[in-house]
Amino acid sequence: MTLPRHRLRVPELAATMTLGPAEARHLHVLRLQAGDEVRVFDGQGHEARATLLELDAGSAVLTLGEAVSGAAETPFPLTLAAALLKADKLADVVRAATELGVAEIRLLVTARADVREIGDQKLTRLGRVAQEASKQSRRAVVPVVHAPVPLATFAPQGQVLVAQPGSVLRVAEVLRWTAPVTVITGPEGGLTDAEVAALVSRGAQAVTLGPRILRAETAPVALLGAIAALGE
Amino acid sequence: MTLPRHRLRVPELAATMTLGPAEARHLHVLRLQAGDEVRVFDGQGHEARATLLELDAGSAVLTLGEAVSGAAETPFPLTLAAALLKADKLADVVRAATELGVAEIRLLVTARADVREIGDQKLTRLGRVAQEASKQSRRAVVPVVHAPVPLATFAPQGQVLVAQPGSVLRVAEVLRWTAPVTVITGPEGGLTDAEVAALVSRGAQAVTLGPRILRAETAPVALLGAIAALGE
Repeated sequence: MTLPRHRLRVPELAATMTLGPAEARHLHVLRLQAGDEVRVFDGQGHEARATLLELDAGSAVLTLGEAVSGAAETPFPLTLAAALLKADKLADVVRAATELGVAEIRLLVTARADVREIGDQKLTRLGRVAQEASKQSRRAVVPVVHAPVPLATFAPQGQVLVAQPGSVLRVAEVLRWTAPVTVITGPEGGLTDAEVAALVSRGAQAVTLGPRILRAETAPVALLGAIAALGE
Repeated sequence: MTLPRHRLRVPELAATMTLGPAEARHLHVLRLQAGDEVRVFDGQGHEARATLLELDAGSAVLTLGEAVSGAAETPFPLTLAAALLKADKLADVVRAATELGVAEIRLLVTARADVREIGDQKLTRLGRVAQEASKQSRRAVVPVVHAPVPLATFAPQGQVLVAQPGSVLRVAEVLRWTAPVTVITGPEGGLTDAEVAALVSRGAQAVTLGPRILRAETAPVALLGAIAALGE
């Protein structure tokens, strides 16, 4: 069953929750009405479904539904597929990507990659970085960091977004959470036009991260940040 | 005069530009019609206004208007106001924030800051980091990194967004480019509830970056990434 889209912070999860004018106004802005379902959470890791019982200008009354587990996880698995970088930069990317909710990290060998392989020890270390970051950001899931594969043989499932400088499509225009999502980012120097064209011909959507040139290690954080900030 | 919202990549800026079915489809999705203005850019740093002359299923014809200068800059100045962190983490934040388009970086002393000051040499070094990052991302503007001030005396102008774990408002719901924008991010351990409440009482909007806990150095990159990906 799909989770309700809107999340609302409450002081405490309780059988009946009465909220004040600020929250009532927010619910009005979201065009919610009595009978609609939302998610409520307490900021301490507890989350549940709730039904809006009453809503007027000054207050909102909600009744508690089933608990939601894995509240810190995206509705479908989110995968980062990033071109190989130097190991210390990859560690920064893995750490931030884990905080931003990825379930898996794939490493890609691309045409312009100046790094074409990664040792077993370094891969193991990236796994440990993911484990620590997962714990720090209070997630139940530890992303797996997979050994690199050539971009040409990589077959992502679900919705695929590729960061491309100069694209005009915005993440906000295309992101749906109706299937797993994979985001692909390039190496220093970027993916080649041919690589992006091949991905697009297989159904990927090329999205912009604004008019500036981003470093290879900034692009995944910016793109995953955009996805996190858009809500799920 | 406000710039047209939508940007379109073209092979070359020319007096008359005829685009193919893919671009025509994109313009349809954006609900644009003959007579509407867009921005066209060539991905090499040139950008201009253009007017849509004809649009059908198979092609779009545009006529060139005035050149747009400073195409890599946000429509109004974007300021990052970040709580003081250790100098090496600040350098990473300054570098990424510069790539993501900030015009100014303010450093804040906050209640939970474990770092409360920064030496002149380190501040000068952050300025150099901004300069290098600006050059790398092909910007005309080098963000100034200002000496720290206490959060209580910081008086941002325009629209103010503060990253708050547990907020329910999304950047996409609130961001307008009708004035300068300032984004405020906290230290390790976060801003206190009282600090966020004081900012909100002075007009700031608390926005979410998703349900997970982000490190202090990830939050600004994620938030600025979201702003860049939303388009300007």
